[in-house]
Amino acid sequence: MTVHSSRAGSPDTAVTFINVFEVDAGDAEAVAAQWERRGELMRDKPGFLGSRLHRARSSDSRFQLVNVAHWESQEAWEAATADPAFQRGTQEARDDAAKPITVSPALYDVAVDLTPLPQSETPG
Amino acid sequence: MTVHSSRAGSPDTAVTFINVFEVDAGDAEAVAAQWERRGELMRDKPGFLGSRLHRARSSDSRFQLVNVAHWESQEAWEAATADPAFQRGTQEARDDAAKPITVSPALYDVAVDLTPLPQSETPG
Repeated sequence: MTVHSSRAGSPDTAVTFINVFEVDAGDAEAVAAQWERRGELMRDKPGFLGSRLHRARSSDSRFQLVNVAHWESQEAWEAATADPAFQRGTQEARDDAAKPITVSPALYDVAVDLTPLPQSETPG
Repeated sequence: MTVHSSRAGSPDTAVTFINVFEVDAGDAEAVAAQWERRGELMRDKPGFLGSRLHRARSSDSRFQLVNVAHWESQEAWEAATADPAFQRGTQEARDDAAKPITVSPALYDVAVDLTPLPQSETPG
């Protein structure tokens, strides 16, 4: 549980991919459904460790959808996203959107990992 | 692995807290260190399930830091963040920042959960 040195990530270490969506709350459900279809293409890619699309509880939240995915390496992620079928799906999702969708995808390392303290037992 | 109905979350179900930081890449390490000190206050709170602060691999990424935390319920998260010591720490972090830090905290439900397909064995 320390702040790791910056830029610790290298192409062959596990990496977190986070994509922050700016989308109208009213469009979030449709965008999530499209995302799920594209995501299916990722499930059998080498190095894919899992992905969760999060939806804001409040329609007032600035970022209605946030994807957090885990990959064995940056190289595995790059190879998977280079799949033409995936790229077509991404383009179609943009074309189909009723309103513009802004996405901010990036690769991340875990800088700080906080786990719960062990619970002390009730005295007595 | 379905798109759950919208607003599925209720105050007593597990919730994901995501905070997206807009901060200069050059300030990210200092902000992460401050975040870790505040985060320590969360570790013994009831309902805290863990928290990871992610740092972008590239200094060009729009969002240099993203915190993804898990709580047993929205109520547990609300109670923990109401702690005056935590609120003081948050305020001090803002006051100490060399440049303005924009944060976008919100509560999320998992809308889609993709797990890897079981790997088929090599034929033969």
